[in-house]
Amino acid sequence: MNEEQKIILKYFSPVAKNEESLGLMNDAAIIYRKKLVVSTDMMVENQHFDKSYDPKCLAKKLLRVNLSDIAAMGAEPYGYTLNISLPKKNSIIWIKRFVSGLREDNKKFKIKLFGGDISCSSKIFLSATIFGITSKEVHKSSFAKKDSGIYVAGYLGDASLGLEIKKNKKIYNLFNTSINEYFLKKLYYPEPQIKLGISLLGLADFCTDISDGLEVELSKVCENSNLQANIFLSKIPVSNKAKVFFKTLNTRKKDIWNKLLCGGEDYKLLFSVSKDKEKLLTKKKIKGISKIGFFTKGSGVSFFDDKNKIVNLKNKGFSHF
Amino acid sequence: MNEEQKIILKYFSPVAKNEESLGLMNDAAIIYRKKLVVSTDMMVENQHFDKSYDPKCLAKKLLRVNLSDIAAMGAEPYGYTLNISLPKKNSIIWIKRFVSGLREDNKKFKIKLFGGDISCSSKIFLSATIFGITSKEVHKSSFAKKDSGIYVAGYLGDASLGLEIKKNKKIYNLFNTSINEYFLKKLYYPEPQIKLGISLLGLADFCTDISDGLEVELSKVCENSNLQANIFLSKIPVSNKAKVFFKTLNTRKKDIWNKLLCGGEDYKLLFSVSKDKEKLLTKKKIKGISKIGFFTKGSGVSFFDDKNKIVNLKNKGFSHF
Repeated sequence: MNEEQKIILKYFSPVAKNEESLGLMNDAAIIYRKKLVVSTDMMVENQHFDKSYDPKCLAKKLLRVNLSDIAAMGAEPYGYTLNISLPKKNSIIWIKRFVSGLREDNKKFKIKLFGGDISCSSKIFLSATIFGITSKEVHKSSFAKKDSGIYVAGYLGDASLGLEIKKNKKIYNLFNTSINEYFLKKLYYPEPQIKLGISLLGLADFCTDISDGLEVELSKVCENSNLQANIFLSKIPVSNKAKVFFKTLNTRKKDIWNKLLCGGEDYKLLFSVSKDKEKLLTKKKIKGISKIGFFTKGSGVSFFDDKNKIVNLKNKGFSHF
Repeated sequence: MNEEQKIILKYFSPVAKNEESLGLMNDAAIIYRKKLVVSTDMMVENQHFDKSYDPKCLAKKLLRVNLSDIAAMGAEPYGYTLNISLPKKNSIIWIKRFVSGLREDNKKFKIKLFGGDISCSSKIFLSATIFGITSKEVHKSSFAKKDSGIYVAGYLGDASLGLEIKKNKKIYNLFNTSINEYFLKKLYYPEPQIKLGISLLGLADFCTDISDGLEVELSKVCENSNLQANIFLSKIPVSNKAKVFFKTLNTRKKDIWNKLLCGGEDYKLLFSVSKDKEKLLTKKKIKGISKIGFFTKGSGVSFFDDKNKIVNLKNKGFSHF
């Protein structure tokens, strides 16, 4: 559990004892009489981004970070409210560019801006509260079952490599434009896995995004379920470009996994499917999902290398607090 | 129209063309299939408050500023999501104190915390998105009718005098504790007029809070309705303590109105009632409301003194942007 989760559990859960908040354990709250889900996320200058970011990109990222929580609930994106605080200087140019990003993603994700608030500040502060419409079900559980298979969707870690490239000019200069653009795109424009979230309704034990890191999210589920998560590193889906990245930098094997799994920024779904439902999952032929391990009796998350030896990851995850 | 409204109208309205946003003209959005209203407001360090503010007070003010928008829609408070970004140093002490404020106002207003997000930053940023449950109706119009009476509820300007006392030690030292505490309480703990908002359903043409100033809000309605608002300063409800304040400071008459009407921080409802409904309003015997003027043909807001001479106010209102 990272500092942020501890604070939430210790200080905010006691004042959020209501059916809707789901104990603050999920990516979104359910407003039960209305079949809406709602979630909120923020992005703060120097914490989530720096001055060099294009406001258009920030708008899209803000929405997508929030949409990823809607995806994790298995809901259809609906709309959002916005809070924006920014320096007065050049604010109009900034806002115009920001709005162009909103406009594009409003269309792409069929979402509506419901309202918001603007203010001035020395640093940029962005938050969105997003709403999703649910069918009968939602992914509201944060429990897994013994023997359930553990799955992720899409290549892990590409966005965190994008962050390395962005932060380190030397690394940037090692690669050609197409490789740099690939990773930066993954960093700037996460793709919320909305269809996947919906298609897993009734199948997954739990479903969450791993923006705080695979280990962090799995630990939570392990703790809730009194189970151990066994993850096989050789099963983790890694993009060819990430392989090129590590080969070029001559990265040590252990560091590779730290970078891929603990760098944050991965708006990918993590879920488990119980033994009796795995056949159904196979039948669905969902593209891009990978089984990376399974739950057993025990506790905590164990990572195994290709010789089934336990690997200790240095960083346990990513916290913005 | 202040800078904030211009920006909203020019840049955000075009991407918020949906039934729910009400064109971004109202205090809250209606999520129409669900009979919920939602609104969001933020508070930023050095813009809305400074380091000296008690976090408990900030929590209450954040909720009440948001609840005031729910009141303006004539909805019942339901719940909210939170975004908090703050410096790491002493953050736990800060959060504890903040949460104690949430807890008290959760109880007072029967609202539920649904979820949220925490991050680090050099300055404190707070935002809340609040939900209200509506009956059949809401105050969604921002139009008035010719000859409608213009009303406000409660004494105007006390909170802005609180701000003066807070900012100016010399002024603070002029008054005894009970007067200082009276004004500071008005500044720190606005009372959202929820019952009033609900009791005006079906009666008021429009209903809004005047946190950005009376003139700003009336101007919007005048523009929407192609009408002129005529406000009689002698009818503006002023507290006895405010009278003492101005007498002690020997404030010039014109400055009094600038301070009372344009200082911001007034989370009071402003509404109009059409001629044919004013009898119904009188029958309801609602305490604390004052008729301060009426709409006629024309445009803009005109203020009149007790000799029916036009008074020009220096400051037109308050904008956080």
